[in-house]
Amino acid sequence: MTDLILKNVRPMGAPATDLNVTAGRFAESAAAGAETIDCGGRILIPGLVEAHTHLDKSLLGLPWYRNEVGPRLIDKIDNERAVKVSLGLDPRVQSERQALQSVAYGTTHIRSHVDVDTHHGLAGVEGVMATREKLAGIVDIEIVAFPQSGMITRPGTVELMDEALSMGVEVVGGLDPCGIDRDPRAHLDAIFGLAEKHGKPIDIHLHEQGALGWFSMEEILTRTRAHGMQGQVTVSHAFCLGAPDRAAVAALQEQLAEARIHIVTTAPASAPVPAVKELHALGILTGAGSDGIRDTWGPYGNGDMLERAMFVGLRNNLRRDDEVELALDICTAGGAAVMGLDGYGLAPGCHADAVLVEGETLAEAVALRAPRKLVLKGGRVTAQDGKCLTEAP
Amino acid sequence: MTDLILKNVRPMGAPATDLNVTAGRFAESAAAGAETIDCGGRILIPGLVEAHTHLDKSLLGLPWYRNEVGPRLIDKIDNERAVKVSLGLDPRVQSERQALQSVAYGTTHIRSHVDVDTHHGLAGVEGVMATREKLAGIVDIEIVAFPQSGMITRPGTVELMDEALSMGVEVVGGLDPCGIDRDPRAHLDAIFGLAEKHGKPIDIHLHEQGALGWFSMEEILTRTRAHGMQGQVTVSHAFCLGAPDRAAVAALQEQLAEARIHIVTTAPASAPVPAVKELHALGILTGAGSDGIRDTWGPYGNGDMLERAMFVGLRNNLRRDDEVELALDICTAGGAAVMGLDGYGLAPGCHADAVLVEGETLAEAVALRAPRKLVLKGGRVTAQDGKCLTEAP
Ligand SMILES: [Zn+2]
Ligand SMILES: [Zn+2]
Repeated sequence: MTDLILKNVRPMGAPATDLNVTAGRFAESAAAGAETIDCGGRILIPGLVEAHTHLDKSLLGLPWYRNEVGPRLIDKIDNERAVKVSLGLDPRVQSERQALQSVAYGTTHIRSHVDVDTHHGLAGVEGVMATREKLAGIVDIEIVAFPQSGMITRPGTVELMDEALSMGVEVVGGLDPCGIDRDPRAHLDAIFGLAEKHGKPIDIHLHEQGALGWFSMEEILTRTRAHGMQGQVTVSHAFCLGAPDRAAVAALQEQLAEARIHIVTTAPASAPVPAVKELHALGILTGAGSDGIRDTWGPYGNGDMLERAMFVGLRNNLRRDDEVELALDICTAGGAAVMGLDGYGLAPGCHADAVLVEGETLAEAVALRAPRKLVLKGGRVTAQDGKCLTEAP
Repeated sequence: MTDLILKNVRPMGAPATDLNVTAGRFAESAAAGAETIDCGGRILIPGLVEAHTHLDKSLLGLPWYRNEVGPRLIDKIDNERAVKVSLGLDPRVQSERQALQSVAYGTTHIRSHVDVDTHHGLAGVEGVMATREKLAGIVDIEIVAFPQSGMITRPGTVELMDEALSMGVEVVGGLDPCGIDRDPRAHLDAIFGLAEKHGKPIDIHLHEQGALGWFSMEEILTRTRAHGMQGQVTVSHAFCLGAPDRAAVAALQEQLAEARIHIVTTAPASAPVPAVKELHALGILTGAGSDGIRDTWGPYGNGDMLERAMFVGLRNNLRRDDEVELALDICTAGGAAVMGLDGYGLAPGCHADAVLVEGETLAEAVALRAPRKLVLKGGRVTAQDGKCLTEAP
C-alpha cells in the first residue's frame, strides 16, 4: 500500500490544502516516503455511494437488447426471469462489468440487491459474491438477498433466502408485500423472521403507491418496533411518501423518523418520490441509487452517482447551491449512513476512499458531471480521467 | 463548400451504406472530387433540434454563480433582471458560448426565446442576432421575442416586441397570461395582434397548471381559430396537459390537434408534463428543448439534446426501443416540424445537417449519450469527437 500526499486539493470545496494518506487512511501528517499527487486545486469528495442497484442483472457489455416488454411490473419480472436463461446472463461477469464501470465514476461502495428465486436459486448471489471477492480493495460490495419473483407465492424461496444469509449475504431483502406476494402479513413476518434469526438488517423495495404503500409502511413500522430493529430497516423507493396527501405523508414520516427507518431513492422522473428535503429536516437517513442499469427493465442508467445527484436535484426541484449540496450529500454520506459504513469521510482516520471532481463548487461538480480526475479506494488509485484502472471482463 | 462521401454509415440505424453530400445537401450520387469520410459503421441521425432555450441568459464561461434565489417564479424573474446588470452579462457573448456548446453536442437548429423588457430593451435581441450572423453556416438560430417580465404590467413592452419583430425576430413570444400579466385577455390579444401585424408565428410559455392552464389554453385555441393561425401556434411547457384529470386533458388535446397547435416540452422531472405518447397518437407536432442552461434559475443543463431525449424518455416512462426512438424523434424531426424547417432529414435533397452517434441502435445512442463523433452543418464538419471546431469567446 502506497502512502500519499494529495497536494493542492480542496476537500468538499474548501480552500486548497494538502491531505495525507497513510496505510490506506487519511492522516494528520505525511508518512515518510509518501508519494505526492498534484490535485491541481480540484475538489475532493468522499467516495460516491451506490446504495441501491442490481449488479446481477445488467446487460453491460452484451449486444444491444431490444426491449419489447409489456407495461406492467409483472411483465418485467416474468420477462427477466425467462431472458436470463435465453441470453445466458452470467451474474459473475455482469456484476464485475457494472461494478468496474461504477468505479470509473468514483463509486467506492455498492449495496446490491441480488435476485433469489426458485428458478435460478443462488446463482446470482454466488456470482456477485465471486465479484465481491475479486474486486476487494477496489470497491466494497454489500449484498441484499432479494426475492424479486415473490417469496410466499413461490414455496422454497424463504429457504433459499435463509441459505443466502448463512453464506454471508449481509442484508435481508423484500418486495411489495401486497403487490407481489398478495400476503403482506406472511411476507413481512418472513423477512423480519430471517432478520432476527441472522441478526441482519432489512432493505425492502416498496413501489406500492398511495394508501396501499402507507398500509405496508405501517406494517413495516409495527414489526420494526416489535423486533427492536430501530435503525436497522431501510425502505427503498417508498413511492407512497410522494403521494399528494401531504398531511397523511407527514404523519407517516414522523413515525419513520421515530423508528429510525432509512429511505433510499432513485429519484425516478415518472413515479412519485419521497421529498428529500422533508426527510432531511426530520433527520431520516437518506441514500440514493441507480437501481437497474441497462437491463431488461429499461435502457437507461450508467452508474454515475454524480449524475444521480443531478436526478435527485431535478426531481426534487433543488436549485439553490445549498440544495444541490444536499443532493450530493445523499449520494455520498447519506448512502454511507444508510449502509452503516465505518470510517467514511475525509477526516483523519477515515478510509481514503475519495474522488477528485471537476468544478469550482460542489454544485458545479454535480452540474458538470465531468470525467472523474482520480478515484481512490483505501489510498489506492482505482480510476483516472474517467477510466477504471482494472479491466472489465 | 466540400462535397462528401460518407462511407460505411448507418442512416437511422439501417444497414451500413454510403451517403453523398453535394453542395451542402444529401444527394443521390457522389460529386466529382468528393472527399471521403469513413464513418466506421456508426449511426447517422439528422441534426439535433433545440426547440426551446434561452441563449441570452446562460452563465456559461463565467465564474460559478452561487444560487440563493427564492422559490417563487417571480423571485427568479426579478432576481435575473437585477443580476444581469450586476454580473455584466453580455447576451452576444453568452449566446455564442451556449450555441457553440450545443453544436459540439450535434445541434444544428436552435429556437431561442430572448428577453424583451423595459429594463434591458432590445439588448438581448441585438446580442443574439449578432451571434446568429456570426454563426451562420454553423448553426441556425431562430429568435422568439419573449416578454419574460410581463407585457401588460410593464407599459412599453408591446412596443419593444413590435420593434423586435420589425428587426427580423421570427416568432412572437408570450408568457402565462394569467400568472404573470394577471390579464389574459389583454396579454393574448396583444400577442395575436403582433402575430397578425407581422405575419409571424407564436410560441407561448405556459407554466400555468391544472384548470388555470386549461383556461389559458382555451383562450389560445379561440384566438388561433379566430386569426386563422392553425399550424402557426406553439405552446411551450403546457404543464396543464400533465394534470391528473385525464378526461379533461383528453378533451383539450382533441381541440389542440384540430387547431394544429404544437407542443414543446423540456420534460422536467419536478413538474407535470404533457404525455408525449398521447400527443403523438393525436398527430400533435411535438418538439423538445433544454430551456435555460446553467443560468440564474438553476445550475443544470448542458444543451445535449441526446440527453434531453433521455429526459423525455425517463419522464414519460419510455422503456421499449420503439418508445425511446419516439423520444429521439421529438428531439430531431419533431422539433424541426414545430419550427417548420425546410429540407430537414437524411433524404436526397435535404440539407446535410447530421450527427454521427455511438451505439448499436438508436435507443443505445440515447442511453449512451457518448461524445458525438462528427457533426455536419450543410455538409461542413462543425464538430468532431465531442469538440466544436469553432472556438467560443
Ligand atoms: Zn431495485
Ligand atoms: Zn423557457
